[in-house]
Amino acid sequence: MSLHLNAFLMTVGHHEAAWRLPESDPFAHVDVEHYRNLARIAERGKLDSVFLADSPVLWNSIGHRPAGGLEPTVLLTALAAVTEHIGLIATASTTYNEPYNLARRFASLDHISGGRAGWNVVTTAGLDAARNFNLDELPAHADRYARAAEFLEVAFKLWDSWEDDAPQGDKASGIWGDDSKIHPPEHAGKYFQVAGALNVPRSPQGRPLLVQAGSSQDGKELAARFAEAVFTAQQTLEDAQAFYADLKARTLAAGRDPATIKILPGLVPAIGSTEKEARELEEELDRLIRPEYAVRQLAQVLRVPAEDLALDRELPADLPDEDQIEGAKSRFTLIVDLARRERLTVRQLIGRLGGGRGHRTFAGTPEQIADAIEHWYTHGAADGFNIMAPVLPSGLELFVEQVVPILQQRGLFRTEYPGRTLRESYGLPRPTNTYARTEAVVG
Amino acid sequence: MSLHLNAFLMTVGHHEAAWRLPESDPFAHVDVEHYRNLARIAERGKLDSVFLADSPVLWNSIGHRPAGGLEPTVLLTALAAVTEHIGLIATASTTYNEPYNLARRFASLDHISGGRAGWNVVTTAGLDAARNFNLDELPAHADRYARAAEFLEVAFKLWDSWEDDAPQGDKASGIWGDDSKIHPPEHAGKYFQVAGALNVPRSPQGRPLLVQAGSSQDGKELAARFAEAVFTAQQTLEDAQAFYADLKARTLAAGRDPATIKILPGLVPAIGSTEKEARELEEELDRLIRPEYAVRQLAQVLRVPAEDLALDRELPADLPDEDQIEGAKSRFTLIVDLARRERLTVRQLIGRLGGGRGHRTFAGTPEQIADAIEHWYTHGAADGFNIMAPVLPSGLELFVEQVVPILQQRGLFRTEYPGRTLRESYGLPRPTNTYARTEAVVG
Repeated sequence: MSLHLNAFLMTVGHHEAAWRLPESDPFAHVDVEHYRNLARIAERGKLDSVFLADSPVLWNSIGHRPAGGLEPTVLLTALAAVTEHIGLIATASTTYNEPYNLARRFASLDHISGGRAGWNVVTTAGLDAARNFNLDELPAHADRYARAAEFLEVAFKLWDSWEDDAPQGDKASGIWGDDSKIHPPEHAGKYFQVAGALNVPRSPQGRPLLVQAGSSQDGKELAARFAEAVFTAQQTLEDAQAFYADLKARTLAAGRDPATIKILPGLVPAIGSTEKEARELEEELDRLIRPEYAVRQLAQVLRVPAEDLALDRELPADLPDEDQIEGAKSRFTLIVDLARRERLTVRQLIGRLGGGRGHRTFAGTPEQIADAIEHWYTHGAADGFNIMAPVLPSGLELFVEQVVPILQQRGLFRTEYPGRTLRESYGLPRPTNTYARTEAVVG
Repeated sequence: MSLHLNAFLMTVGHHEAAWRLPESDPFAHVDVEHYRNLARIAERGKLDSVFLADSPVLWNSIGHRPAGGLEPTVLLTALAAVTEHIGLIATASTTYNEPYNLARRFASLDHISGGRAGWNVVTTAGLDAARNFNLDELPAHADRYARAAEFLEVAFKLWDSWEDDAPQGDKASGIWGDDSKIHPPEHAGKYFQVAGALNVPRSPQGRPLLVQAGSSQDGKELAARFAEAVFTAQQTLEDAQAFYADLKARTLAAGRDPATIKILPGLVPAIGSTEKEARELEEELDRLIRPEYAVRQLAQVLRVPAEDLALDRELPADLPDEDQIEGAKSRFTLIVDLARRERLTVRQLIGRLGGGRGHRTFAGTPEQIADAIEHWYTHGAADGFNIMAPVLPSGLELFVEQVVPILQQRGLFRTEYPGRTLRESYGLPRPTNTYARTEAVVG
């Protein structure tokens, strides 16, 4: 047993002002060498995976932080070449892709990496993204999730469309493959019609590890049916425990073993050799945030005019209800709850969001961070964490060099990879092909 | 001046029976190491690019030859990691992709490879592909090409949506980028609505090298407007000269310098130390073709029942007209012309197609192959060739080790790469960003 740790890679750090530090290269987010370095560091720490978020849109303004990025399936393929064990999890949207294309790319990445591909399934909130894909309006939340569920059904059929022994390669007879072991989906549903088999043989993992990251009701239902790992933003132990218990119960109700879904809250660790040093790093980063941009962004998430947010006051009392939000529902609620619970001013709130983007921030010594991880892990709040270093590469290096060894000494985290595939790191079996005939037992 | 040579990589060789040779690994088509090896060989020969064909469909049967393959943009990203100079050209369909996604992937590959990406723009013939993308019928040929032209317009806007100096990275002021240098397309056309700027900064080449491969009227019109290289199948010098002259004239008529479009027929070289040895290789491969599959495939392209094709007779006199074909028009015509011109039996025809798949086959010594290349190159039939080795890697190795040095000695082919980007190999400038303001000349 080991807890699970993913390295969430975001430009030069999860903190929006990280690029302004003297150590940072402001253009590293399109430099493959930067990511190669990060992947190697994470693999040195025996982390389960590197993870890339994504959305097919250029958000807001490029004024205050590195904007845009390399497409994740492509970038992770480049990282596969310089690593051997670490998992490679790419975010991709079910709303703005076709199942045939995306199933193919993930199967290809899984072949190229020798079984290390993971897919973070997202439905992509935001009108701006919709407007890049022939739409005038964002599809309704429920519709996006219904499409996602059907997308996954189709993708499963495609990934299973080749039985493992369909390719035979018999040179003497000239029979390369057995057509009876190819199973075209012939899918005709509400959102998709996909007739033919995938044009890639079944991949080392059978299918990529499936990750889900939305925490709305629809998101949790989708996760309960399909996800093998869930990334979530949780600020308090109590909320995390409630989320954990809820999702494990839903997974059981969906007919699956709750042990096969790993729940991984985000953690933004500011690491110092003393607690004071760690807090100083956090404060230095918060000082570098440009509030005019941050307020505009916050106003957008909260669906209020930016003028309604005064830097040194709390949030206005009357905000829209979550039910009215068609975008990222759970993120909206998390931010409002955080602000109300801790009675944060807008300035304090944007500091917390600029650093954590809604995720739990924690400043402390390596020992304190290991304690924080152990506490949630042993108290039914997490099966592991998505590590979001505020500054990259230094924050990931510190985590790997100073926090991981403590977790290993405590017997909480692996010292070697259990195998070569991402599923092996997660302790999950390779899925059986649904079309594979059960062999008759010969007496 | 140098002629241009691309290595067309197809499983273990362009000949459909290559996998049956003792030297071949029948499963190499999903083994990234096989392709890494091929890319390194091609780079050793200073070839312009490696090129991958593609279609989002599992064609026909897997019975007689390696089927399926890794998705090209992903596979080429893996090859970028082990090469430094060679271009990476991926085929992708405008009919079954969205401009935002595809423009992004090519820009990402261009960043990751340091400016070596190329895109072979195809519209994807075949009902089987349509049925993988929610359609019951193949869109009409003219419609596919109209969509392709608009797709490219949108892609150009997206690739130019960041001026080169939009990212500024000014740490002191906290200004990462200049929003006035971002140009959202706000495109609203017949096929696409794409509002926002791309979420990747402008790439090293500005945009990928654009390649086009259809030789129908619509295909040639598209090429004249947009293509920088054209892959074509030509069996005779006269046909190749006519195609060359026609396309250069169309390019001029489209307002472009004809020197900026490179015309590259396919060539399938069977290389032997004597002519006899070369012919024996060809014959050995043809003997390994399984005619029952080849006949079925031929019948499909010709739109006739397989029963109408008798192995030892010529093609039936009454075949559909090209005008009735909504699929790959030019391929249909090429095959019929080849059969009629040389009065081939069906068995002879499938030998030629199994080896060349419609492309020109040539068996000979390295000297003879160099002569054949020089002859077309110096007689207005080609700016270079798409080299389709019948067996891989051995056929590419022979070409690089034995044919390339002869071409170099004759001063026809480069001995060093002129730069680091694919555009430099093709002698093409980096495109100016259409949105970039002309700087005032300061006196």
